[in-house]
Amino acid sequence: MLQRPEHQVAGHEAGSGTLGPLIDGSGNFFKPLNPSDERGAQELAFYTSFYSDMRVPHSIRSSYFPSFGGTRILPVPDSPDLLLPHLVLGDLLHGYSDPCVMDIKIGARTWYPSVSEKDFAKYWKKDSESTTPLLGFRISGLQVHHESGRWKPHRDTVRKYTVTDVRQSLRQFVSKNPDETDPDCAFASSVYGGSNGILAQLLELKSWFEGQTLFHFYSSSLFIAYDKGGKAAQAKLIDFAHVMEGEGIIDHNFLGGLCSLIKWVSEILTDPELVAVPDDPEAAERTADPIAATGPAEPQAMVGPTE
Amino acid sequence: MLQRPEHQVAGHEAGSGTLGPLIDGSGNFFKPLNPSDERGAQELAFYTSFYSDMRVPHSIRSSYFPSFGGTRILPVPDSPDLLLPHLVLGDLLHGYSDPCVMDIKIGARTWYPSVSEKDFAKYWKKDSESTTPLLGFRISGLQVHHESGRWKPHRDTVRKYTVTDVRQSLRQFVSKNPDETDPDCAFASSVYGGSNGILAQLLELKSWFEGQTLFHFYSSSLFIAYDKGGKAAQAKLIDFAHVMEGEGIIDHNFLGGLCSLIKWVSEILTDPELVAVPDDPEAAERTADPIAATGPAEPQAMVGPTE
Repeated sequence: MLQRPEHQVAGHEAGSGTLGPLIDGSGNFFKPLNPSDERGAQELAFYTSFYSDMRVPHSIRSSYFPSFGGTRILPVPDSPDLLLPHLVLGDLLHGYSDPCVMDIKIGARTWYPSVSEKDFAKYWKKDSESTTPLLGFRISGLQVHHESGRWKPHRDTVRKYTVTDVRQSLRQFVSKNPDETDPDCAFASSVYGGSNGILAQLLELKSWFEGQTLFHFYSSSLFIAYDKGGKAAQAKLIDFAHVMEGEGIIDHNFLGGLCSLIKWVSEILTDPELVAVPDDPEAAERTADPIAATGPAEPQAMVGPTE
Repeated sequence: MLQRPEHQVAGHEAGSGTLGPLIDGSGNFFKPLNPSDERGAQELAFYTSFYSDMRVPHSIRSSYFPSFGGTRILPVPDSPDLLLPHLVLGDLLHGYSDPCVMDIKIGARTWYPSVSEKDFAKYWKKDSESTTPLLGFRISGLQVHHESGRWKPHRDTVRKYTVTDVRQSLRQFVSKNPDETDPDCAFASSVYGGSNGILAQLLELKSWFEGQTLFHFYSSSLFIAYDKGGKAAQAKLIDFAHVMEGEGIIDHNFLGGLCSLIKWVSEILTDPELVAVPDDPEAAERTADPIAATGPAEPQAMVGPTE
C-alpha cells in the first residue's frame, strides 16, 4: 500500500499536481523520475555508477548512502492513470516511530561547473539568501518529536535561518524542549556523542571525503535522524541530481562544509554547561572526554584553538 | 643595505613607479603600506590582531606565519625622497642560497563577504580563469633551481595554468629536471615527505584549521620553499590583506582548498613509480609508508578510496 512519507522535512511532496516520493511501509522509498526533468535521470545515473564502482568502500556505501534497488513503474497518487518510473531506494525512516529528522544541504555553493546561466542565477540567489556561503551548509528542514508532540518549523521559516538560527537548531534538534528559548540538549550526548553517534559518523564520512576523488556532491544533503523510541542515530547522504565526476580532485566544497558542521556539533558536545547537567550519567561520562567519545579518528579536530 | 628580494615569484615587485617589498639581508622583509590602498592597513591590522591573540597556539604562529616586528618608515627605491611606512616581517628566504619557491593561493574563492561590487567582479573573473573554483587553489608563481640554473615560468604562463598544469607543477617543483616533459620528482621524498616535510606541515596546519574560528583567510597564499643547499622545507601562510573575522565559523573555504592540495601532494609521495626509483634509499623507505612518513596526524587522509 503506497503512501506519502509522513516525516518528510524537505524536497518536493507528493500531492495534487506535484510529484513526490512514496513509501510502501516495508522499507522501500520510491522517488519519481519525472521525464520532463533531467534531474531524475541524473540521479539514476549517479546511483547506478555509485553502486557499481568498486573503488567506493563497502562500509561507506552501506553506512552513509540509501540502499538502491533499481527502478520500478508505479502509478502517481491522485492521477492513478499516470504511470511513472521511480527510483527504488531504502526508506531511511523504516521502523522509526517518532523520528526526529534534519536535512542539511552541504557545501559553500550548490551550483556546479556545467550549470546553465539561468540555473546558476537561481542557485546563486538561493545560496546568497541562506547560510550556505557563510557556513558551508544550510538547514533545509527539520522536525523534532518531544513529549507533547511534533515540533516542525515551517519551510519558509527554515529558509530564512540565519547563522544564529542554525546554531540554535542543532541544539533544538537534540532537546526535550525544542520550542523553548533555551533548549536543554538532553539528547546531545546520546545522539551526537558516543562511538556510534552522529559526530563519529560525520568523522568517518569526512575521512572518506579527504581521499575520494570520484564524485563531487553539489546540492546534496546530509539526512540526520534518530528516534526516541530507540532507533540509533544515523547520518546519510541523499539527493544526487547534481553529482559530478570528481576527475581526480577531492570534493573540497562538500568537505569544507562537512568540517564546518562537525565543528559545531562537537562544540555542543564539549559545552561545559551541557556536560555538567547530563541527561544520563553514563553518556555524560563519555562526552566529558570527546576524544574518547568519538574514538581514535582525528581527535585533534575536535579541540578548539587553545594556547 | 635595502634591496629587492631576488626570489619573489608573485605579488607586486618594487620598481620604477611601483611599490614592492624590500629586504635588508639580515632577516627582515619590508612590505610597503601604501596610504592610497586600504589593503596595507588591513594587513597591518591582521598582523597586530593575530600576534596579540592568545587563542592562536604558539606553535602555529611560529611555524606557519612570518614573524612580525611592527612597522618602520623607509625610503622608496627610485624615489628616495618618498618615505613610506612598511610592515616589518621575517624574510622567509633569509639564509637560503638557491631557493626553490612556490606561491599557492588557497581557497575555492578569493572574494570575501564585504567585497565591493567592483572588486567582486575582478576577483570573480580572476578565479574563473584559474583553477581556483575547480581545485580549491591556484599556483601564483614558482621557481626551481636545478643544476644548470634557475627555472621560473613567466607569470603570464602561470596565470593560465590548467588543472593538469598544476598537477605537473607540483612534480616539477621537486625535480632535478623541472623543465623536461617527465619531471623525475627526485626531491619528492625529502621535500614533501618525512616527519618534517611539507606534507606533515600541511597536515598540522589543517588540524588547526579544523578547529580555529578566529580568522577567515581570503586570498592568502601558502608559500613553500626549500633549498638544495640544505635549508629544511617550509610552508608558511602569507598575504593577509583580506583576512576577515571568523565569528565562530571555521574557514571552510581555506580548509577545503588545503585538503585538496594535501591530497595531490600525498599522491606524489605514494606514486608507485616514484617509490620504486628513489633519490635516496632512506627517504624511499620512509615514503613507502606514507602513514609512518607523516607521523600520527590523520594518516587516513592520505589513503585514496580503496575497497
